[in-house]
Amino acid sequence: MSSKNSAQTQTKLHLIQVKGTWQCHGEDAPLTQGKISDAKIYESKSHHGLTWTVVSPIVFTYKIVQRENLLDPGDDTLLWGHLDHEDFSGAHDTSHPVKRFIVIDETVQQLYGAKITEYFNTRQVVYKVLPLPTTEENKSLELVTKILQEVHDFGLDRRSEPIIAIGGGVCLDVVGLAASLYRRRTPYIRVPTTLLAYVDASVGAKTGVNFAGGKNKLGSYVPPVATFLDRSFFQTLPPRQLSNGMAEILKMALMKHRGLFELLEAEGPQMLESKLQSSDTGSRCTRLAIHTMLEELAPNLWEDDLDRLVDFGHLISPPLEMEVLPALLHGEAVNIDMCFMVYVAHLRGQLSGDEKARVVRCMLGLNLPVWHQDCTLDLIRKALSERLKHSGGSPRMPLPTGLGQAEIFHDMIGESVLSQAHQMWTSELSPHSK
Amino acid sequence: MSSKNSAQTQTKLHLIQVKGTWQCHGEDAPLTQGKISDAKIYESKSHHGLTWTVVSPIVFTYKIVQRENLLDPGDDTLLWGHLDHEDFSGAHDTSHPVKRFIVIDETVQQLYGAKITEYFNTRQVVYKVLPLPTTEENKSLELVTKILQEVHDFGLDRRSEPIIAIGGGVCLDVVGLAASLYRRRTPYIRVPTTLLAYVDASVGAKTGVNFAGGKNKLGSYVPPVATFLDRSFFQTLPPRQLSNGMAEILKMALMKHRGLFELLEAEGPQMLESKLQSSDTGSRCTRLAIHTMLEELAPNLWEDDLDRLVDFGHLISPPLEMEVLPALLHGEAVNIDMCFMVYVAHLRGQLSGDEKARVVRCMLGLNLPVWHQDCTLDLIRKALSERLKHSGGSPRMPLPTGLGQAEIFHDMIGESVLSQAHQMWTSELSPHSK
Repeated sequence: MSSKNSAQTQTKLHLIQVKGTWQCHGEDAPLTQGKISDAKIYESKSHHGLTWTVVSPIVFTYKIVQRENLLDPGDDTLLWGHLDHEDFSGAHDTSHPVKRFIVIDETVQQLYGAKITEYFNTRQVVYKVLPLPTTEENKSLELVTKILQEVHDFGLDRRSEPIIAIGGGVCLDVVGLAASLYRRRTPYIRVPTTLLAYVDASVGAKTGVNFAGGKNKLGSYVPPVATFLDRSFFQTLPPRQLSNGMAEILKMALMKHRGLFELLEAEGPQMLESKLQSSDTGSRCTRLAIHTMLEELAPNLWEDDLDRLVDFGHLISPPLEMEVLPALLHGEAVNIDMCFMVYVAHLRGQLSGDEKARVVRCMLGLNLPVWHQDCTLDLIRKALSERLKHSGGSPRMPLPTGLGQAEIFHDMIGESVLSQAHQMWTSELSPHSK
Repeated sequence: MSSKNSAQTQTKLHLIQVKGTWQCHGEDAPLTQGKISDAKIYESKSHHGLTWTVVSPIVFTYKIVQRENLLDPGDDTLLWGHLDHEDFSGAHDTSHPVKRFIVIDETVQQLYGAKITEYFNTRQVVYKVLPLPTTEENKSLELVTKILQEVHDFGLDRRSEPIIAIGGGVCLDVVGLAASLYRRRTPYIRVPTTLLAYVDASVGAKTGVNFAGGKNKLGSYVPPVATFLDRSFFQTLPPRQLSNGMAEILKMALMKHRGLFELLEAEGPQMLESKLQSSDTGSRCTRLAIHTMLEELAPNLWEDDLDRLVDFGHLISPPLEMEVLPALLHGEAVNIDMCFMVYVAHLRGQLSGDEKARVVRCMLGLNLPVWHQDCTLDLIRKALSERLKHSGGSPRMPLPTGLGQAEIFHDMIGESVLSQAHQMWTSELSPHSK
């Protein structure tokens, strides 16, 4: 810019509020009594004109609450668990009736509809339950509009009456987007009923829908006010859905927690069998999954940092999942992606043959697919070059460098490693090879 | 919550990144070498289960750049003005062609289309200009979807190729929403061509569309990467559009800047006449408008604080504007709202009769409507009770307490003041009264 070489003066301005009015103050100005903002304004003048630069931090605060009896009418969590204790007492005093709008997946409604109705009836809440077919195929802006219309007709206080989403990841993502749009931000609560949603969609700020054939092409980064986690929902999950969620847990294990990997390796099949209900292994496994996810998501809530370990398994899987929809569940596609990348890491000398074999065995123990015919070398190449396009000229590829440790690599995987890995992967794991 | 009375331990965890992996560290843990995040996680345990609280600040940075020759092919601003100087040199080195997607209002396209095409052609940019009828009636989710489809077909780098919006407030709001949704956040640039958009929509983070008959019912808080301000666009504005913008300037003057009010009072008609082209009054007037707006918006970018001076004129005007659409422009509806509220402030003893008369005279000098037959007492009552519903039980009403100073009042305006004000306002300012 030409102003680079021109005389330019920049002034840092603090913002101080006195009697409801904000005013700029220079560095040297005597500090007035008043509230000081964390936001700053920088004013710079050149012969081209004035430039203001606004630097304004927004603090997102949200809770992730583990409970065991969420739908027990005696438990306050579903209604008030998003509040701080102080706020909560206030909320109890109110003379207005409590209102809640609940969006629920159709299948969850069949299984838990009666309990949910009983909960809100017993608590004398004015409520509406909206059951929707929240499948990956329906994950669209149309579904968001449908929710918005119903929310609008029901009428909600934009500040104190959070929308509650009860269901799998698609339900939580779609409701999250609707809530983040309604009046520019209406609080919402996530109640995951699948293992996948429990350890993945629940934890971060992302909302989204598919668009123009692309997975989650539209969305926002607005966290819920709270997520309520209750493992008892898993009791009604089909086995395939449990394995589906295990894939995302395995991702975190491979990337950063050897103890979690060893737990999956040793206890995976048993945990599937018991639907993670055990207060010992089931509890430990989900707790570690949430904890490791939060570690990676909290410092990077808006994904400003492109180097993300949580992207492991998410480079090839999005086009694969969309291509074969609905043949593969999300976690299954992720697992196929991870498995191929384990072969890549092995050929790059980052994982020994024994480590590779242990990972594959662990995946099989979790009843996860480790290979897919539609995951062709061509699809992989396209997915990686798409990745390159959208990550500022570097592939930024998370790859394991051992069991439970990983690094982000900025070099492109060489064509020969890629085709060698694909060949070895196919020859070892495709059904024809056996 | 029942956990209130139960034994509970809370641990504050810092996040430290070593070799690409984030890890939680307690307060007492020895500080490892590594990057420390501003985000924190609080872990608390009770017999009910675990609760994590995530506190994660996101810093929004955006530039507002005043220029005089934005469409001059020799000026870099439109292409690179959103970058820091450092980044800019980098951007110049790139071997890729520069790509830009531009959404423009149809009327602006007729007036400036040729110049814009020339700009991008001369700069050898790969571009697409999408002209749209961005009127208040068309400010809908459908228009957002249309933009998204076109952006998707054109193909953009989500990081480095900002979408450019050129037009009035509706255009900037709609494009802002589309950009904030696309890939959960694609950078966008605002180029306001009306005075209203220049001093209002340009400055903050709000995007939006109308929904279900409600004004801006859907939207997001995502600021542009940059706003480029060029007063020369005003040369082609019809007089009514200039007055329309003056209303928002008058709002800031009344709320917090007596000098700006006196400028409007003394020079308003002359500034309208010269379409704010004067490098003296026109420049000072717009600069003060932007500066005072930024003071109020920067510390409250996501409107977490419900006490907002900038809401003056925006309590009654939204339903009024939607009711008579398209009879009143936004600034006109705002002015009618402000004028009524000046009567309220007068009856509450906050403004003298002389001050009230000066404000009304100033409004008339700016060719703004000061009364409207559809702004009935009934509409006003409904608007105020709607306000009450959406601001946490208090009306939080900004009202002048002098010329260029104001306060937020938390009491409800009494019914007698309301009807007295409406009567006095109507008898003094309705056309039949003269």
